[in-house]
Amino acid sequence: MISVVLLGAGNVATHLYKVFHNSDAITVTQWYNRHVDKISTYKNEVSVTDSLIELVEADLYVMAVSDDAIATVSEALPFQDRLVVHTSGTASLYDLDAKHRRGVFYPLQTFTKDATIDFSAIPLCIEALKKADYKLLKTLAHAIGSQDYKVSTEQRKRLHIAAVFANNFTNQMYRIAHEITEANQIEFDVLKPLILETAKKIQNMSPYMAQTGPATRGDKQTIKKHLNLIENPQHKAIYKLLTESITETHGRKKL
Amino acid sequence: MISVVLLGAGNVATHLYKVFHNSDAITVTQWYNRHVDKISTYKNEVSVTDSLIELVEADLYVMAVSDDAIATVSEALPFQDRLVVHTSGTASLYDLDAKHRRGVFYPLQTFTKDATIDFSAIPLCIEALKKADYKLLKTLAHAIGSQDYKVSTEQRKRLHIAAVFANNFTNQMYRIAHEITEANQIEFDVLKPLILETAKKIQNMSPYMAQTGPATRGDKQTIKKHLNLIENPQHKAIYKLLTESITETHGRKKL
Ligand SMILES: NC(=O)c1ccc[n+]([C@@H]2O[C@H](COP(=O)([O-])OP(=O)(O)OC[C@H]3O[C@@H](n4cnc5c(N)ncnc54)[C@H](OP(=O)(O)O)[C@@H]3O)[C@@H](O)[C@H]2O)c1
Ligand SMILES: NC(=O)c1ccc[n+]([C@@H]2O[C@H](COP(=O)([O-])OP(=O)(O)OC[C@H]3O[C@@H](n4cnc5c(N)ncnc54)[C@H](OP(=O)(O)O)[C@@H]3O)[C@@H](O)[C@H]2O)c1
Repeated sequence: MISVVLLGAGNVATHLYKVFHNSDAITVTQWYNRHVDKISTYKNEVSVTDSLIELVEADLYVMAVSDDAIATVSEALPFQDRLVVHTSGTASLYDLDAKHRRGVFYPLQTFTKDATIDFSAIPLCIEALKKADYKLLKTLAHAIGSQDYKVSTEQRKRLHIAAVFANNFTNQMYRIAHEITEANQIEFDVLKPLILETAKKIQNMSPYMAQTGPATRGDKQTIKKHLNLIENPQHKAIYKLLTESITETHGRKKL
Repeated sequence: MISVVLLGAGNVATHLYKVFHNSDAITVTQWYNRHVDKISTYKNEVSVTDSLIELVEADLYVMAVSDDAIATVSEALPFQDRLVVHTSGTASLYDLDAKHRRGVFYPLQTFTKDATIDFSAIPLCIEALKKADYKLLKTLAHAIGSQDYKVSTEQRKRLHIAAVFANNFTNQMYRIAHEITEANQIEFDVLKPLILETAKKIQNMSPYMAQTGPATRGDKQTIKKHLNLIENPQHKAIYKLLTESITETHGRKKL
């Protein structure tokens, strides 16, 4: 049984609490948040606190707090030589105070509070300075059904950038498609199957192989027509730049 | 029973043949392609031909040929006053020769020959000049399990642009993420659950509501760090432009 003290009560902490609580191999010994009212509804299940001084002993302390609070909160922890991890994609392992045994437990997924989260589909990127700590984090990942990936600080930073492209920028493509359909009295629903299929396709095929469309075909006429039809100057600039990017990837001459 | 003559043997025609052939409400009377060898393996199931002169009578002629062949092939058809439709997202209804009863039967999905296609998840964008023809196309869509959408020529053109964003440009985001992971010895597989979740999320939530990440939060520090880490100048330009686009959408001041 792994005993965990959880710190924070945001998107990530709330989902971690639930999945830890439901695992037979994990016990959440205590839950801390600076505003305790946010977690007080859980006080029948778990000991809650807003005082760092009151923190009890545990195998590991999971700090799911904002990136810029990681350094100060870890410094304020009134103990040393215990395993303390953060859950950030960008923060360094060394942002944690050096008095702790340090680690990272970064779930590579987009969390919003209300969406249900299937941890078995979430890769856990793990880092630790000590071998035994690494092993414990791996066991923790498996206990919630996740697959673990050993990722260095440098790799995690790049992975976070890749995730911005694969998640935030992709979602902005959906947003622009939404703006275009809305402006033309078309239901955005028409595009939903296409969006899902696009994501499913690359589960078994490289994005390179999966690419289709005017830029891949080198269909200059369609591209020109599209650029004439797009009124929003920012949409136009994005259309141009991404068409160039696809053209470069697929090795055709500049359009 | 709707009788169909199919023209073309590319990605779309091949999938349409299969789904028409499997429907109890549709009979494919004949299949035409200019190179008949491409469809000759089907000759035990359906009458195949490479001669337009030999085309038999049918309720409807579905032309799934390249966009730039639509005008010439429709003109070459040796009959008139029959219902002829194309399957293009960009071509106009009026690209079809005026001697026909004209229509459009545009499946909004990305087709590649080998992938299996679930037509029940494909919106069919329909257009026709005559009411009775429109009704027939609607019946055809339902017979293959698809949902039909009434879309005008103008709307279909904009929808095609929206699809370029939602499909081709999205896929290019995956491609860039792939390039970043590959360059850093990270398995692209780590990103696949995130990609799928991003697409699933907007099935029940607007892309606006679903957006997260540094640009949405106005997290200038992370954006700056990312821009410093990205070496590829095109990736950097895309990161900048899409960050601006998200910032504009989410109403924060310019970063
Ligand atoms: N959201 C995601 O999709 C996602 C995915 C992977 C990793 N992460 C990482 O997970 C961590 C948490 O993210 P989140 O989305 O859960 O954030 P969040 O929803 O904004 O929650 C942040 C939490 O940190 C607490 N906090 C902030 N400043 C603090 C301080 N100075 N002292 C004590 N507590 C403080 C907040 O306390 P109050 O409740 O009292 O305000 C809140 O509970 C971050 O490192 C983030 O990079 C997020
Ligand atoms: N692929 C998609 O994802 C997709 C999605 C929705 C709609 N569409 C539309 O569906 C139509 C077909 O696309 P596709 O992807 O199936 O194309 P494709 O795979 O490139 O196949 C094109 C077909 O058109 C035939 N063709 C080309 N020029 C011709 C000519 N001058 N005379 C007679 N036949 C000619 C070709 O004959 P040969 O076999 O003899 O070369 C081939 O069978 C297009 O209008 C396209 O815009 C495509």
